[in-house]
Amino acid sequence: MKDRTHNNGELRLSDVGKKVHLIGWVSKKRNLGSIIFLDLRDRYGYTQIFIEEENEIIKQIKSEYLIEVDGIVRKRNSPNKDLATGEIEVVAEKITILNSSKQPPFLIQDETDALEDTRLKYRYLDLRRPKMQRYLFIRNAICKATRAYLESLDFIEVETPVLTLSSPEGARDYLVPSRVKKGCFYALPQSPQIFKQLLMVAGFERYYQIVRCFRDEDLRADRQPDFTQIDIETSFLSQNQILTLLENLIARIFKDVIGYEVSLPLRRMPYKEAIERFGSDKPDTRYGMELIDLSFLKAFGPDSFKNSETIKGLVLQNQASVTTRKVLDELNLTANKFGIRSFIALKYQNGTLEGSFLKFFDDETKEKIIAEANLKENDLLLISNGKHRSACFSLGAIRSIYGKKLGLIPSGTHDLLYIVDFPLFQEDGNGGYVSEHHPFTRPRDEDLKYLDEDPLKVYGSCYDMVIDGYETLSGSLRIYDQEVQKKVFAILGLTPDQVRAKFGYFVDALQYGTPPHGGGAFGLDRLTMILSNTENIRDVIAFPKNLSATCPMTNAPMPVDDAQLEDLGIQVLRKE
Amino acid sequence: MKDRTHNNGELRLSDVGKKVHLIGWVSKKRNLGSIIFLDLRDRYGYTQIFIEEENEIIKQIKSEYLIEVDGIVRKRNSPNKDLATGEIEVVAEKITILNSSKQPPFLIQDETDALEDTRLKYRYLDLRRPKMQRYLFIRNAICKATRAYLESLDFIEVETPVLTLSSPEGARDYLVPSRVKKGCFYALPQSPQIFKQLLMVAGFERYYQIVRCFRDEDLRADRQPDFTQIDIETSFLSQNQILTLLENLIARIFKDVIGYEVSLPLRRMPYKEAIERFGSDKPDTRYGMELIDLSFLKAFGPDSFKNSETIKGLVLQNQASVTTRKVLDELNLTANKFGIRSFIALKYQNGTLEGSFLKFFDDETKEKIIAEANLKENDLLLISNGKHRSACFSLGAIRSIYGKKLGLIPSGTHDLLYIVDFPLFQEDGNGGYVSEHHPFTRPRDEDLKYLDEDPLKVYGSCYDMVIDGYETLSGSLRIYDQEVQKKVFAILGLTPDQVRAKFGYFVDALQYGTPPHGGGAFGLDRLTMILSNTENIRDVIAFPKNLSATCPMTNAPMPVDDAQLEDLGIQVLRKE
Repeated sequence: MKDRTHNNGELRLSDVGKKVHLIGWVSKKRNLGSIIFLDLRDRYGYTQIFIEEENEIIKQIKSEYLIEVDGIVRKRNSPNKDLATGEIEVVAEKITILNSSKQPPFLIQDETDALEDTRLKYRYLDLRRPKMQRYLFIRNAICKATRAYLESLDFIEVETPVLTLSSPEGARDYLVPSRVKKGCFYALPQSPQIFKQLLMVAGFERYYQIVRCFRDEDLRADRQPDFTQIDIETSFLSQNQILTLLENLIARIFKDVIGYEVSLPLRRMPYKEAIERFGSDKPDTRYGMELIDLSFLKAFGPDSFKNSETIKGLVLQNQASVTTRKVLDELNLTANKFGIRSFIALKYQNGTLEGSFLKFFDDETKEKIIAEANLKENDLLLISNGKHRSACFSLGAIRSIYGKKLGLIPSGTHDLLYIVDFPLFQEDGNGGYVSEHHPFTRPRDEDLKYLDEDPLKVYGSCYDMVIDGYETLSGSLRIYDQEVQKKVFAILGLTPDQVRAKFGYFVDALQYGTPPHGGGAFGLDRLTMILSNTENIRDVIAFPKNLSATCPMTNAPMPVDDAQLEDLGIQVLRKE
Repeated sequence: MKDRTHNNGELRLSDVGKKVHLIGWVSKKRNLGSIIFLDLRDRYGYTQIFIEEENEIIKQIKSEYLIEVDGIVRKRNSPNKDLATGEIEVVAEKITILNSSKQPPFLIQDETDALEDTRLKYRYLDLRRPKMQRYLFIRNAICKATRAYLESLDFIEVETPVLTLSSPEGARDYLVPSRVKKGCFYALPQSPQIFKQLLMVAGFERYYQIVRCFRDEDLRADRQPDFTQIDIETSFLSQNQILTLLENLIARIFKDVIGYEVSLPLRRMPYKEAIERFGSDKPDTRYGMELIDLSFLKAFGPDSFKNSETIKGLVLQNQASVTTRKVLDELNLTANKFGIRSFIALKYQNGTLEGSFLKFFDDETKEKIIAEANLKENDLLLISNGKHRSACFSLGAIRSIYGKKLGLIPSGTHDLLYIVDFPLFQEDGNGGYVSEHHPFTRPRDEDLKYLDEDPLKVYGSCYDMVIDGYETLSGSLRIYDQEVQKKVFAILGLTPDQVRAKFGYFVDALQYGTPPHGGGAFGLDRLTMILSNTENIRDVIAFPKNLSATCPMTNAPMPVDDAQLEDLGIQVLRKE
């Protein structure tokens, strides 16, 4: 094997006449009788090889053979404008086969109709597809931009443990049995939350880490058992300073990676407003279609309607005629997920409002509905009533579906904003409370007084960054006062013994001059998806798992030898 | 809290007269009756605070309180030359306590006599010690230099799976039970070896990753259950090109991190020579003390001596008089580890050679020994005989101990070299073979012919980089020919079924135009130790485990709820 003189994305008209040596995979072989064309591919691109005469070597060559080509660059008769090297071709003088290839199970090209499980099984071939490589290059470019920006600001990357204890996020942990301390288990971290806070206690002041995290949850289409966070923590900064830092970082990433200018500062929308207007704490505000307040309707209808905490409406433009009973039933399935039995559907057709629920309203009210919702011919108005969150979120979910369905999202634009002022707690449905973010989130100073009397009135110093309708970053200031931390644990129903067992070392650490600190974490997979313009999370991970948390390539997880389990002092109870 | 105007390592004489606002931890409080000095500390350094009069706030302040100081910079009467800010002090005008601190269990300063388990338990305080922070900054600087260098050469960082299958290194895996496929387990990777090779199959050509790896081995002082590798793989390069790349990288790291110029190219010493001359495959060649070939003695002595494969000597300078029977017994314990019953010890005192074994030698032979070993008054000559590896390695171990003991290592210098031409296989002691590196190491082209007839004659295209006597990198060219790979698996005693079960997907991948490829991996922890000048691996890891693979801070690993195990379909058999 000789060193190549050029890669396959490099040759231009100015190279015509040069003697070159190329290496690459045969992407395509076209035999035109007397002459033969090969498309040679590597990570840099394609080069067309022109072969004047077939010989024994050329005959052997098939797709995905790895070959070396000696030849001369010449101008093409008919340039290919889609290709960076499209103005030239290389006239082969000598071709050597470096390695042969079986016929791949699918074509190695951007567009493929191969089943995803086949692509995952032969991932090493799937990753030869230029599109897939582009995704990983974008992922890498995001990491590069992140490091460059944070390191310019004195951030230090510190590695935190992978074999550790249960973390406070509350999802299910992956466990690792200990051989040395039999009967004991490490947990894989759901995030480095506690460790990064301890690094602030230790005085590192500005920490980041691009770090793998693990959650043993039932997988949804956009989830993986392990995922990567851009994890950030700082000391001595105000919430506003942190938001500025994080938005500067994301602007740098958008600029460096896809050349997109994010206009700063990002809007900061209170959680309450996001729910009221968009029925979501991660609204895609690239389009309108906002929720409409119909609380004036409380004066009417049956008691269950009158007693609603909230009545909201959503207009589906031009959908009255196409929204059959069947479509409505489907919409109601979405409503059910949020605890709403069914939407009230009113159609505005031929200048009048139709729907069985109208019997509760007088004409004036109907007119008011039409005016408030600004209904146009053939619009459908969905009304959702009940608990505030349920009424809003149910319509928010519909908004999100129809935003895509109706093509309301302008292409090529991105929408970034902060959601701020989240409630610190939510009711857990059993008379207790759970953290909206996590138990270390600092209450807003002005709400500390409600901690004892009414936890639901306490807002947190926390923030999400929402990009194109995805929660891409979540963060907060953290509690650095041990007394406040104790109160929060108590509200969450943790006894002092439980606190000691789970977080004892952390509560101890708060006693030693802990600095005010805060930070956040971007989801790298999600961010890569957004910048790559793909909706499949597996596209942006080199070797992902499928929805059964299995790797179709290695077949992990697999059964292991009994001796190995014996060593660990455990046994399998049930096999599936 | 106001923004600080300066950090604590920043103020100089040129700042005298400025009004400043500082934030930091109180490192020391000296009460000189009427006046008080505080040393204020942050990650950047120390600043001396001068307080003219005590008040209630000042009275409260103790070590490790976090405070804010408003004051004026002035020139110190007696500068402290050990401190970057030693020429000035800040005359406090107002002091505010940001957070109080309990008395720490040990002093937060570079030198400490705290037990290591105490330091690990309170790691967040231990990491406040400037020395410990320096170690992590060095670690970070190594990563920065690595990324800068590799990214300038088109390397892409790709994340490989953490939840995966057993890898080929052969150490014990950490296992993770699967909840979805009960009875099945993921393994944490001992290295990304297979994945990085698959990335070469996929055509990425230049990959790197700073990556956590896991081995469930009994811990030695310099081992951790998880450790970090700088993992590198390339396609289309010769061994020589890869060695050049890797030595340029290490030179860049030494330069950027500690300003040390490594002279290139590094020596490339064949494995055989390293064993012959230094009795080690990772020799510290900063000092001589080489092994001496005494094979001419085979003509003498008892049969067991005459039949030795190898007879080697090592001179311990000036050690004859201090090497008592007891010391010799200890040396022999080292010999035993290498299968040598005992060394033959000859002392050169008062111009004559002494030792019971001398009875086998005539005067001429004795003179020849003195001459060959170049013995000086009071030297001790240790002779080791037996199998070649045993004879050499046993003396190599003694050389390494006495190199340090006799102060032969020049301080402030580093010694870097490559060891090359390792045998591909070693005997496993049961008539079989094991890989010297791993089963994917490519045999040297010229040795392929011995694969069938005599595997021990086959050398690998592999290399270690040895720094100051530590194996810091290990790498090789990889097999890219599936037929060769099959042969190697067969020599290692793997049946086709075993190969299919363990590496089936990998063997398949080799069939699709796999490029010639190779690479290596640096141990980041080891490298950080060398550049930090510490021999304790736990110093260079933020939150390490102790020798029982336990974290004294979090107490991980811990018992878990039965419900969690039930969920995973496993149960604990034995607790310890």
